[in-house]
Amino acid sequence: MSIRALVWNENIHERESATVRDIYPSGIHGCIADALGVEADIEAATATLTDPEHGLGERRLAGTDVLFWWGHAAHGEVDDAVVERVVRRVWEGMGLVVLHSAHFSKVFKRLMGSPCNLSWREAGERERLWVTTPNHPICRSLPAHIELEHEEMYGEPFGVPEPLETVFVSWFQGGEVFRSGCTWRRGAGRIFYFRPGHETYPTYHQPHVRRILVNAARWAHEPQPPIADVTDAPNVPAARALEPLVARGPRLHADGEEGFR
Amino acid sequence: MSIRALVWNENIHERESATVRDIYPSGIHGCIADALGVEADIEAATATLTDPEHGLGERRLAGTDVLFWWGHAAHGEVDDAVVERVVRRVWEGMGLVVLHSAHFSKVFKRLMGSPCNLSWREAGERERLWVTTPNHPICRSLPAHIELEHEEMYGEPFGVPEPLETVFVSWFQGGEVFRSGCTWRRGAGRIFYFRPGHETYPTYHQPHVRRILVNAARWAHEPQPPIADVTDAPNVPAARALEPLVARGPRLHADGEEGFR
Amino acid sequence: MSIRALVWNENIHERESATVRDIYPSGIHGCIADALGVEADIEAATATLTDPEHGLGERRLAGTDVLFWWGHAAHGEVDDAVVERVVRRVWEGMGLVVLHSAHFSKVFKRLMGSPCNLSWREAGERERLWVTTPNHPICRSLPAHIELEHEEMYGEPFGVPEPLETVFVSWFQGGEVFRSGCTWRRGAGRIFYFRPGHETYPTYHQPHVRRILVNAARWAHEPQPPIADVTDAPNVPAARALEPLVARGPRLHADGEEGFR
Amino acid sequence: MSIRALVWNENIHERESATVRDIYPSGIHGCIADALGVEADIEAATATLTDPEHGLGERRLAGTDVLFWWGHAAHGEVDDAVVERVVRRVWEGMGLVVLHSAHFSKVFKRLMGSPCNLSWREAGERERLWVTTPNHPICRSLPAHIELEHEEMYGEPFGVPEPLETVFVSWFQGGEVFRSGCTWRRGAGRIFYFRPGHETYPTYHQPHVRRILVNAARWAHEPQPPIADVTDAPNVPAARALEPLVARGPRLHADGEEGFR
Repeated sequence: MSIRALVWNENIHERESATVRDIYPSGIHGCIADALGVEADIEAATATLTDPEHGLGERRLAGTDVLFWWGHAAHGEVDDAVVERVVRRVWEGMGLVVLHSAHFSKVFKRLMGSPCNLSWREAGERERLWVTTPNHPICRSLPAHIELEHEEMYGEPFGVPEPLETVFVSWFQGGEVFRSGCTWRRGAGRIFYFRPGHETYPTYHQPHVRRILVNAARWAHEPQPPIADVTDAPNVPAARALEPLVARGPRLHADGEEGFR
Repeated sequence: MSIRALVWNENIHERESATVRDIYPSGIHGCIADALGVEADIEAATATLTDPEHGLGERRLAGTDVLFWWGHAAHGEVDDAVVERVVRRVWEGMGLVVLHSAHFSKVFKRLMGSPCNLSWREAGERERLWVTTPNHPICRSLPAHIELEHEEMYGEPFGVPEPLETVFVSWFQGGEVFRSGCTWRRGAGRIFYFRPGHETYPTYHQPHVRRILVNAARWAHEPQPPIADVTDAPNVPAARALEPLVARGPRLHADGEEGFR
Repeated sequence: MSIRALVWNENIHERESATVRDIYPSGIHGCIADALGVEADIEAATATLTDPEHGLGERRLAGTDVLFWWGHAAHGEVDDAVVERVVRRVWEGMGLVVLHSAHFSKVFKRLMGSPCNLSWREAGERERLWVTTPNHPICRSLPAHIELEHEEMYGEPFGVPEPLETVFVSWFQGGEVFRSGCTWRRGAGRIFYFRPGHETYPTYHQPHVRRILVNAARWAHEPQPPIADVTDAPNVPAARALEPLVARGPRLHADGEEGFR
Repeated sequence: MSIRALVWNENIHERESATVRDIYPSGIHGCIADALGVEADIEAATATLTDPEHGLGERRLAGTDVLFWWGHAAHGEVDDAVVERVVRRVWEGMGLVVLHSAHFSKVFKRLMGSPCNLSWREAGERERLWVTTPNHPICRSLPAHIELEHEEMYGEPFGVPEPLETVFVSWFQGGEVFRSGCTWRRGAGRIFYFRPGHETYPTYHQPHVRRILVNAARWAHEPQPPIADVTDAPNVPAARALEPLVARGPRLHADGEEGFR
């Protein structure tokens, strides 16, 4: 049973900038899908903004175990209905790996319930990621730190809820720091945010970065069937209570009714 | 310097049901504001759905330290712009106390990023809340457990992100359990969800419940000024970096520009 | 590559009480090892208090991926040197599943840094465990709740640090609740506490309980090699710093020295 | 009602090194107590290793709301009985602020249940602490970042359990990062670890650092009375159960007995 990974990319910079296209001739999505697809246990596909329903129709998402998301210039063009569909699949148990500038994607902001903001600088400076949680599955086969000679800087404070686990913290040449690898859980879905990946640098070609992406796919994958009716709020009438129960007092609701939402 | 508490209530059941009106002649909001207002360090006001802007205009919210929220039948009628305004004030540092059926309020779901669902039964059964985190500020002056002879049942799983702290867990006569007191932080704002408070029972008249509401107001209150520009993502040009830095490599952005959102 | 599970039991009650021996003729450890060992991917062995070094010598522990621990009457007889050895292996990455009355074991208290206390009653009452985190790997193939007709009661407050995840919450017939399934991480080791398992009831024969034990073995298993030198605090001399650095100011330490502990 | 702060210091370097004595003529403890004591709501006292019972007798601790701890060269000389007494007071609700090299103090390691290790370098390099949780009470009146021109480096991984909140992250000139401000809760006690404070640099004279120490005293202070019998595990006989209960099945324990520990 393979992990069915889907790499989503807005695919704007690759079309508009020769610089980006030179680094990622098959797109950032293509580059990441290659990193994942060479693994025997992962099947990787891609989808982009201009595909019908952004390539994220019901069926496609139902057949996706882990979704990778890269976006930057076109966050606002992502259809709200698609966002809700992706969010619901996360709640059902689909893993989600949020990459770099996708900190401001609708999907990530919707799941975090927080501003997801940060400070930033595009100066091609050195970034060094330190593993803060050794032997976390996402850190498998990594050294104690990873250097990226050219990256965009993201600086704290990072406007996210306290992570479940902080996996990487970055040092930047210009003097900032950032929690570059963080995990959360929303519903049954595992979420991993991974900071590096600015479009004008060859970050997703870096072997350690590719290792992290593979590790993240395996970590985020939950083989159990999706949670059915993940937003339901079922009424349990007194007559069907697990312990003997006689209903008492005034009521507004009838047995088995739907309740207010 | 008093804590400026604002108690918001949709105020539907009180108008439509004699049962509810008999229990809460001044509305659930009035009853809660009374519990808060008798404390020397708390000023309590109220707002309801039918007030202009639901009583939650910019100025009103700017002057609110802790917002209490009770809603049930009219979640869908709360204006999305008001929801965003409340959410932003939480991020800036306003405390939020979410009560009972407001688990399905737009504000709470927006901040949690999760379904916030549960199972339920309206049978007037006995609920017993156990303190799981003794000496938490929200538990001040409470016994080890609190009994409510008549309450609606809410059962696990509760569709929320793992709380920062679990403060109460409830036992129900019919055989269910529920994490009835949970805390989170979103931006600079502290959030407390408190389960009890079905409209057909006199829960908010119960002295221990009133004690919890007062404790929660004090716990959620942050005296620091609100975070300015809470959603900003400032650009830090290389020339203004804290460490000497020469920009390198290809760029898409100009110094000081706004970036994509 | 199998998961090498080791089930440790003090094995006191089984020898001293005919009641317990009748329920667990091969000991609680034998019963649990049977549950694990039928799975194709798990090799299960056992160790008890009276074995040399309690069956937990260096070599044995080095060859253990997940350790299950049941203790009750003889917590004080467990050798402190063995406790430290087990704790160190957890830090290195060995999983640990702590069962029932082992909440008061030296190993668990040592790893939690908290009292680990609770209230209790041995009355053969009904316990119902509710899944609070659906689709958590530990809940795989479970229904929404599990009933144990006869169990000892453990009541809140449970004197542990806030768990990383709360997986089960129990309802008890006598009116109490308990967070019956909790996870933590210490060093690289995953820890799961599972409440049920009083020696005078056939709890570890119950199919759902056996399913949980199997799930927990898989969840707690980390296939990466153990962290080497897990308590080391290495000195990094200025000359070997990752960024150019000239040492400045007064010093107490020489390059490469060990530092104080 | 003042906050009764007690600043504990081993006071070794101050006696043995002229360098340290010049910076801290009244000892690190004296310098910190000065910072706290100028606040109207804090009474600050000091205690050191050579005082009888290290200055941490039962009565002294019972009268302490928040304990600050600085140690380095003499961790091993701290009496285990005193360590247990301090730990118990934390469980009861006393706040604890752990400073710099006290990451390896017996008290901190005992409460964390983890190695508490890190990498380090004494080169007088620049440290910059970034606020990661704006408007946290510990960050009150601070700028977005704080610079210490000369500090010892501590590098990740920091061998502690995942913090409840990460408040500061440090950047070091030599290329490392560190989670320099972290909070945990153990029993009813709040714990704050604050990284800076190497004995050969004037860190505790720095105004922002002094502000953090004052903020931490207020944050860690819990005005509620200590938890009584904080390690008790009370038996609740069936006859005194909150719900009607008839004891069933075989038993090992008599009503009201103490249970095994």
